[in-house]
Amino acid sequence: MAAPVIALLTDFGTQDIYVGVLKGILNRLAPQSKLIDLAHGVPRGNVPAGALMLWQAVPYFPPQTIFLCVVDPGVGTERRGIAAIWEQLIYVGPDNGLISYLIERFGKPIAYQLEDQIPASSATFHGRDLFAPAAGRLAGGLPAHELGPQTSDLVRLAKPRLALRGPGAIEGEVLHIDPFGNLVTSIGLLEQSKGRLVLRPWVGDPSAVEMDGSQHAVSLPEGQQLALHRTFSEVEPGAGLAYIGSSGLLEIAINQGDAASEFSLAAGNVIQLYAKG
Amino acid sequence: MAAPVIALLTDFGTQDIYVGVLKGILNRLAPQSKLIDLAHGVPRGNVPAGALMLWQAVPYFPPQTIFLCVVDPGVGTERRGIAAIWEQLIYVGPDNGLISYLIERFGKPIAYQLEDQIPASSATFHGRDLFAPAAGRLAGGLPAHELGPQTSDLVRLAKPRLALRGPGAIEGEVLHIDPFGNLVTSIGLLEQSKGRLVLRPWVGDPSAVEMDGSQHAVSLPEGQQLALHRTFSEVEPGAGLAYIGSSGLLEIAINQGDAASEFSLAAGNVIQLYAKG
Amino acid sequence: MAAPVIALLTDFGTQDIYVGVLKGILNRLAPQSKLIDLAHGVPRGNVPAGALMLWQAVPYFPPQTIFLCVVDPGVGTERRGIAAIWEQLIYVGPDNGLISYLIERFGKPIAYQLEDQIPASSATFHGRDLFAPAAGRLAGGLPAHELGPQTSDLVRLAKPRLALRGPGAIEGEVLHIDPFGNLVTSIGLLEQSKGRLVLRPWVGDPSAVEMDGSQHAVSLPEGQQLALHRTFSEVEPGAGLAYIGSSGLLEIAINQGDAASEFSLAAGNVIQLYAKG
Repeated sequence: MAAPVIALLTDFGTQDIYVGVLKGILNRLAPQSKLIDLAHGVPRGNVPAGALMLWQAVPYFPPQTIFLCVVDPGVGTERRGIAAIWEQLIYVGPDNGLISYLIERFGKPIAYQLEDQIPASSATFHGRDLFAPAAGRLAGGLPAHELGPQTSDLVRLAKPRLALRGPGAIEGEVLHIDPFGNLVTSIGLLEQSKGRLVLRPWVGDPSAVEMDGSQHAVSLPEGQQLALHRTFSEVEPGAGLAYIGSSGLLEIAINQGDAASEFSLAAGNVIQLYAKG
Repeated sequence: MAAPVIALLTDFGTQDIYVGVLKGILNRLAPQSKLIDLAHGVPRGNVPAGALMLWQAVPYFPPQTIFLCVVDPGVGTERRGIAAIWEQLIYVGPDNGLISYLIERFGKPIAYQLEDQIPASSATFHGRDLFAPAAGRLAGGLPAHELGPQTSDLVRLAKPRLALRGPGAIEGEVLHIDPFGNLVTSIGLLEQSKGRLVLRPWVGDPSAVEMDGSQHAVSLPEGQQLALHRTFSEVEPGAGLAYIGSSGLLEIAINQGDAASEFSLAAGNVIQLYAKG
Repeated sequence: MAAPVIALLTDFGTQDIYVGVLKGILNRLAPQSKLIDLAHGVPRGNVPAGALMLWQAVPYFPPQTIFLCVVDPGVGTERRGIAAIWEQLIYVGPDNGLISYLIERFGKPIAYQLEDQIPASSATFHGRDLFAPAAGRLAGGLPAHELGPQTSDLVRLAKPRLALRGPGAIEGEVLHIDPFGNLVTSIGLLEQSKGRLVLRPWVGDPSAVEMDGSQHAVSLPEGQQLALHRTFSEVEPGAGLAYIGSSGLLEIAINQGDAASEFSLAAGNVIQLYAKG
């Protein structure tokens, strides 16, 4: 049997010892497991960004991977810790919406509330004192139901904006800005061919929408328009473009530039994709 | 038997290949070992910061973990390389005080001086040419005494300032500033309950001190006062607080802010914890 | 048999999920493999810097290590993907010159062109859709010739400038600037002893050149001169020096400073090493 894989997603950065301490604990409890850094650069305390990153990465990991996720601005408050189990994966982390997009994709998980056996002195590092121990025990073979009572009313983020504007346009919002200033939007594209787009308005939506037209473009809040391209190399350095990003979502970028600051865009801003001609 | 664990702590950062080269060497010499990044963001050449980070992390790692530590501003000078053995762990790195706090906690180790077989051309990268080979050979099963002659007069950092100021006050110093601007101090707290603090004046000190009082607070060099809280969420964003940090030491922070620059505090500054009312 | 080692070298940084996704894929295809981060801080799109970093690191890894390298400014264009096989190592990545210096050192590899089975929707992330799957399959035991047709006309970077200027001087160029502002040059030194340097003018060149003289120094484009030293500690903080870097190449630095900005040097600038007295 392959060793259990534990993937770590946090907003701790890698300068200090926080991530290393999680790995020490996981090694104590599950020495045979394999630890993979998914990312530690989630913008600090940004649960929607973490939820999107988790959703983007999950399909590429082995089945049954345990995702230990600590993006936890509510540490020390009443928010619960959970283990959420799907057939494809296991999530261990705070119940604060980080798995919202996974629920869209895979349906509701079986979830257990982590029993709080944290010493009173640990108000600030539940990654170390609650989540890593739970993930390590699961990887070491503990049945999930021994972690705590089953629970169901999990916290969900609001669904991102997505609205059809007739057959020729779809409205979405900026979900996330990556470290290079590229913008990820809520509009999902299934297929793109000459003069035809097959769109899936967001990931959990079973419907597919076709947009015909000789060209497609994106309009930004300030009125700018960007043509839809296949790759960065189709435009000059410094020029803006829209394209299908590597996770199947519509993205907005500037070739060798920073689209977020150039176009003054932030998470939540509304954009529209439409057919031209 | 579990695979040997090697934890790496350096000030190399992760941009360039230095850490990767250490891991290549460890894999050659001990292919069955498991490599864990403790942290590579020790402030460059800052031995006291590295010593504190090592001390904070050690309790969470499996027994017998080999800590390969390269924070080495004296590379190329006469400072020695050592392997230091305790029952709990093994340290491989420079003899420059990095293990000072471990000696406070675990007592004096059995230490061996690494025999210098470094090629003359390597004046600048002892991590690669001296320490990683020694750690890899230990992980591969070499008895420690074959690394070089036993030695005992190890370099120690000065003990951090800690002074009782009567039953109601204790004076300490700022030890370290983390990447978020939170300040770690030398005052260790064992237990905190309503109206009562049990303090351990620094980590190696067996005595415990009680401070009664309805409230406790910290005074900073410029005269500011910060109340002692349990968690960040007890104060408004932008407000300062003192609290017991995740390693059991008194820390000073600003909720969602940078305490070091806001309060103009640096390592070595004196702070005082006292009982109010 | 030891588990296959896969070393990852990219310009992705570690903030976002790109590297984590590669590791997820490698774990799916080769669960028994050991994944080592060589570095993810190659300057973005900088193939010569990536080529140098790869060349510097290779000697320290176990034989047969698979190097998965994604520094790929031409993604989405016609540049090919390859697997290149030497006795010492395997390279998987773009055919854009990243292995130029390995070819200087180890000779021409047996190379296979990766058959492009990438979905049309992936124009931007060949690390995920082409290179990681190929590296994972090789680590999982697939014979290399099953990846695609054999090929030979591999892209090479221009050789760095190196010219003997009589017995007393050698001219080279700045190859790379590391994150601390230290400059790596194209001049390789084999041996250094009092009054005598044995030089290898670049890495693939079998000839060795001796430069006698009581002292040696480097002249920079703006006319500054820096004496050749053994270590940083031989000069005062703030002073410039030349020295043999940890990969055997002549480097230029300022002790505790940033030589690149202080001396206004960039990759490609010409420098000269000469004998004095």
